[in-house]
Amino acid sequence: MSMNDEHRARLRRFRESIDNIDAALVFMLAERFKITQQVGVYKSKYDLPPADPAREGEQIERLRDLAKTANLDPEFSEKFLQFVIREVIRHHESIRSGEQNDSRWS
Amino acid sequence: MSMNDEHRARLRRFRESIDNIDAALVFMLAERFKITQQVGVYKSKYDLPPADPAREGEQIERLRDLAKTANLDPEFSEKFLQFVIREVIRHHESIRSGEQNDSRWS
Repeated sequence: MSMNDEHRARLRRFRESIDNIDAALVFMLAERFKITQQVGVYKSKYDLPPADPAREGEQIERLRDLAKTANLDPEFSEKFLQFVIREVIRHHESIRSGEQNDSRWS
Repeated sequence: MSMNDEHRARLRRFRESIDNIDAALVFMLAERFKITQQVGVYKSKYDLPPADPAREGEQIERLRDLAKTANLDPEFSEKFLQFVIREVIRHHESIRSGEQNDSRWS
């Protein structure tokens, strides 16, 4: 379990690439939530249902296929999408309940 | 809760952008796991510990700062990183136990 200078230097190079990718992921996620935020406002405005199981099923299938071409575990891509969608639905519900609160007091 | 053609068309345009971003996320994640896979093999080869709490703390702080500049919830960026790291550690442990199995039988 020793960690000499060569190990540290090698791990540092790996980590620089991981850090670059993580920055890209954070900015892509931010952009994704900007769009789902607009979707949430739109759905709330027209009283459309926040979740859409048919759409989610299509997204999961599509990402599983993309994952295979990218040599990523399709199970992980599905768990990842569900993790993101849970956050989106949480946002949508808070947009909806925010509007309900407004109408309650106006 | 009606969904007329205008709503469908508007949601489809949002969803095309979400699908593009999701494809980018899947390919970035695949690239990230290619690197962490190399890290796992390297750590296993030199018997370095699979997890590194100090490194994880730095990653979390860095991503929280990036999230703020991207207008993404820092709490979400932290949950996201922990979600990805759990998968990485699972990979590393399976690399390690795979090697242990190999040495057990060779």
